[in-house]
Amino acid sequence: MELVGTNSNLLADALGHIQREIDAAFDAFLPMPGDTRARLVEAMRYAAIGGGKRVRPLLVAATAELYGVDRDAAVRAGCAVEAIHVYSLIHDDLPCMDDDDMRHGKPTVHKQFDDATAVLAGDCLHALAFEILADPATSGDPFVRTELIQTLATASGKDGMAGGQMMDIVAEEQDYDLHTITRLQQLKTGALLAASVEMGAILGRIAPEGRGHLRAYARDIGLAFQIADDLLDHEGDEAKAGKALRKDEGQGKQTFVSLMGADKAREQAHALVDQAIGHLGTHGSEANLLRALARFIVERDR
Amino acid sequence: MELVGTNSNLLADALGHIQREIDAAFDAFLPMPGDTRARLVEAMRYAAIGGGKRVRPLLVAATAELYGVDRDAAVRAGCAVEAIHVYSLIHDDLPCMDDDDMRHGKPTVHKQFDDATAVLAGDCLHALAFEILADPATSGDPFVRTELIQTLATASGKDGMAGGQMMDIVAEEQDYDLHTITRLQQLKTGALLAASVEMGAILGRIAPEGRGHLRAYARDIGLAFQIADDLLDHEGDEAKAGKALRKDEGQGKQTFVSLMGADKAREQAHALVDQAIGHLGTHGSEANLLRALARFIVERDR
Repeated sequence: MELVGTNSNLLADALGHIQREIDAAFDAFLPMPGDTRARLVEAMRYAAIGGGKRVRPLLVAATAELYGVDRDAAVRAGCAVEAIHVYSLIHDDLPCMDDDDMRHGKPTVHKQFDDATAVLAGDCLHALAFEILADPATSGDPFVRTELIQTLATASGKDGMAGGQMMDIVAEEQDYDLHTITRLQQLKTGALLAASVEMGAILGRIAPEGRGHLRAYARDIGLAFQIADDLLDHEGDEAKAGKALRKDEGQGKQTFVSLMGADKAREQAHALVDQAIGHLGTHGSEANLLRALARFIVERDR
Repeated sequence: MELVGTNSNLLADALGHIQREIDAAFDAFLPMPGDTRARLVEAMRYAAIGGGKRVRPLLVAATAELYGVDRDAAVRAGCAVEAIHVYSLIHDDLPCMDDDDMRHGKPTVHKQFDDATAVLAGDCLHALAFEILADPATSGDPFVRTELIQTLATASGKDGMAGGQMMDIVAEEQDYDLHTITRLQQLKTGALLAASVEMGAILGRIAPEGRGHLRAYARDIGLAFQIADDLLDHEGDEAKAGKALRKDEGQGKQTFVSLMGADKAREQAHALVDQAIGHLGTHGSEANLLRALARFIVERDR
């Protein structure tokens, strides 16, 4: 993928680095068992290793870096967020959900294995996220571990990601206005991106009242991320995206692009990124990666 | 349901009590939202409130009672285990899994709602379990909370319940011997029952080395529970069970009953219960509920 703009090398290096780290972490967390669970773990590995951009783990790591957090701890927490993200993709791709055949340029888990294995592989990645976070290896301080878990569990359940997915399903039957679409996307995509930033701050032992600017940053890039996704879905290249595009339009679903028009949406995404970067004003060059990541979110081509 | 044998009133009262407490807890954890997530939360409530025997929450509470744990804490932890159990039933009943139409005498979640809602309702109950446990209201001590979470996450993922479900799916294609069936059931059913007992001890702040007899008790009742399930599946009454029976036989799956014969299996289940009760020898009358629960596990009719 091509990276343009300021700090592109910084970001490209950081993405490459975290991608290797997350792949290595999943490889270590998912040894092949010697019994008939092999099919399950194979499916988990198929979905979790390779392919993803790893934006969420990088958000954890880049935020944790602001506060000098141990890299291993940040990678473990990032791996937990990514496990939730990957499980949600597996379930979302199921025939009874979005019914997608391709993901990251290869067959989806239920296509490569079968539907039952895909359900279980998703469930096990879901559990794995909390196995990782509860392990003292993630942080010696149990208070930090429970705060990480509470943040991730809330962001992924009915008041976060999965709640947003439900709103998205209902969107096929109901016309949403811009306010409702924004709320839907804040849950479906924004909650997990915000949790990633929050978890970096938790690892950095920043008290909730010191996280306001990071939460504001996360809220803005979350919304920008989804607008960019809608633009990619509208204008993108299926080969680069590695998945089917323009499905929302086919189903008559409202998106930021359908409600605002592509030009206005693009403008809005860039304004949100500028605003997100503005929230990082109190930080110096140590926040350059978070700044570059914010720009990447609207400039990516997949 | 009819309860026979010693301490039947003790057990009947305790089951009635915990059933009301768990229903009330789910009711409080699952307020109806004012947006289009209503369908999701309705499905979660439909599956989680009413119907279940609540054996797992009672195991948590009865073990916690040995050590004078605050009742609210035990009910919250029991509710978390039950949330995992209920999510697994929802996903297990899906057309791509066991394809069951009835559960607890009413239509399964995907029949009452739809498959996509069932997938998401299961996912959200899964997340809810960890939301409950990570909350300081469950225990003021974050070390206790992370230990609860680590125990439950491990017992429900690839090295526990869901791993056992995968082995069970593969059982349709492969003939398992008694050793493999035992391993499968230890994961599929035993892990969560054992976690329930373990979580009671964790709330009681009993160090791992002081939990040996409880683990032995849990291992024995876990196996007895599954043998009793196989016997019910073989000989039970569908109306009482509230679900379809004799599916394993139809699919040519090996069970304890098919491998040992019904008489031998029954004998084995009773021997395991006696052995389980023997492990409680160091406790006095305060363990009578755990003893009665062990007997109930093989004497129940649903």
